[in-house]
Amino acid sequence: MISSNDKNELIKSLEGCGAVKFGDFTLTSGKKSKYYIDIKKASSNPSTLKLIAKQAASMIKKIDIDLIGGVALGGVPIATAVSLETGLPLLLIRKATKDYGTGGRFVGDATKDDRIILLEDVTTSGGSVIEAIGAIREAGCIIEKVITVVDREDGATENLAELDVQLIPLVRASELLEKCNL
Amino acid sequence: MISSNDKNELIKSLEGCGAVKFGDFTLTSGKKSKYYIDIKKASSNPSTLKLIAKQAASMIKKIDIDLIGGVALGGVPIATAVSLETGLPLLLIRKATKDYGTGGRFVGDATKDDRIILLEDVTTSGGSVIEAIGAIREAGCIIEKVITVVDREDGATENLAELDVQLIPLVRASELLEKCNL
Repeated sequence: MISSNDKNELIKSLEGCGAVKFGDFTLTSGKKSKYYIDIKKASSNPSTLKLIAKQAASMIKKIDIDLIGGVALGGVPIATAVSLETGLPLLLIRKATKDYGTGGRFVGDATKDDRIILLEDVTTSGGSVIEAIGAIREAGCIIEKVITVVDREDGATENLAELDVQLIPLVRASELLEKCNL
Repeated sequence: MISSNDKNELIKSLEGCGAVKFGDFTLTSGKKSKYYIDIKKASSNPSTLKLIAKQAASMIKKIDIDLIGGVALGGVPIATAVSLETGLPLLLIRKATKDYGTGGRFVGDATKDDRIILLEDVTTSGGSVIEAIGAIREAGCIIEKVITVVDREDGATENLAELDVQLIPLVRASELLEKCNL
């Protein structure tokens, strides 16, 4: 559990670096929104990234884990920062393509029965994370939890639950909405 | 300049995590070699990555720079660690493909006249770095230096010099060879 103080500090930092904007927005879908998420600005900003890493690391301390996984490309800076913060080794998971070059799907060493926690910057329905979970399980590794910086709450929690994976968001869309209404 | 103490500490750390192996190797080209480089093990190992970041950051301190650039995928953990160490914002440069998705070629904000230093894990002839330099210059940004963890000394220095870019290796292949002969 993240304390509401931590959550407020993170939302403030996300707002400060431009990763979350509050106002009146029309999304590309035509839908109106009171906030706008441009999560890449969070990884670009080292002080926001450090805060994310600290909060994620404090959750990971309580879990028995061998490897910090990052889904390319957005999850890689987050996972790197968490690996540095926790001292746990890093595993990168390339996007699914026909050709991974000479390096294979993973960058780093994943051994059968390794317990991996995945880090992602933003989740909507969870598609790219689900794809990475498939690759991790195919390699015989164990994955039970995914930490995401912001969950848009558009199906990711439910879709991951179907795979027996728990999604742990540092911030939820509904918590951003609450902020708008303050 | 890196002191020889720093260099020895880095080589020891690279050897410790398996990124550099000393012995008798036959490369895929059929050539014999006294060492073998598997640089991805350096980014996977948080203590080696932290040491790389510290050494790169001490060089960057002396240069006037706006952004830390990382070439996907290998340069991204290195650049992230250096961004965290220096407090300078991070810019990721995707590999050249026909389709970058919705995000464009860069992840992060590159503005005209920004001074960027590129971080790479390993350089041979410098191909992927040269490609990234082209993209950075096309965006109107300035790039004069590239830091690489290990330079295999197979043309990268000369090829970058032709573009007026200086390659700064933390360790050179010839320095690894010296180690073998000790």
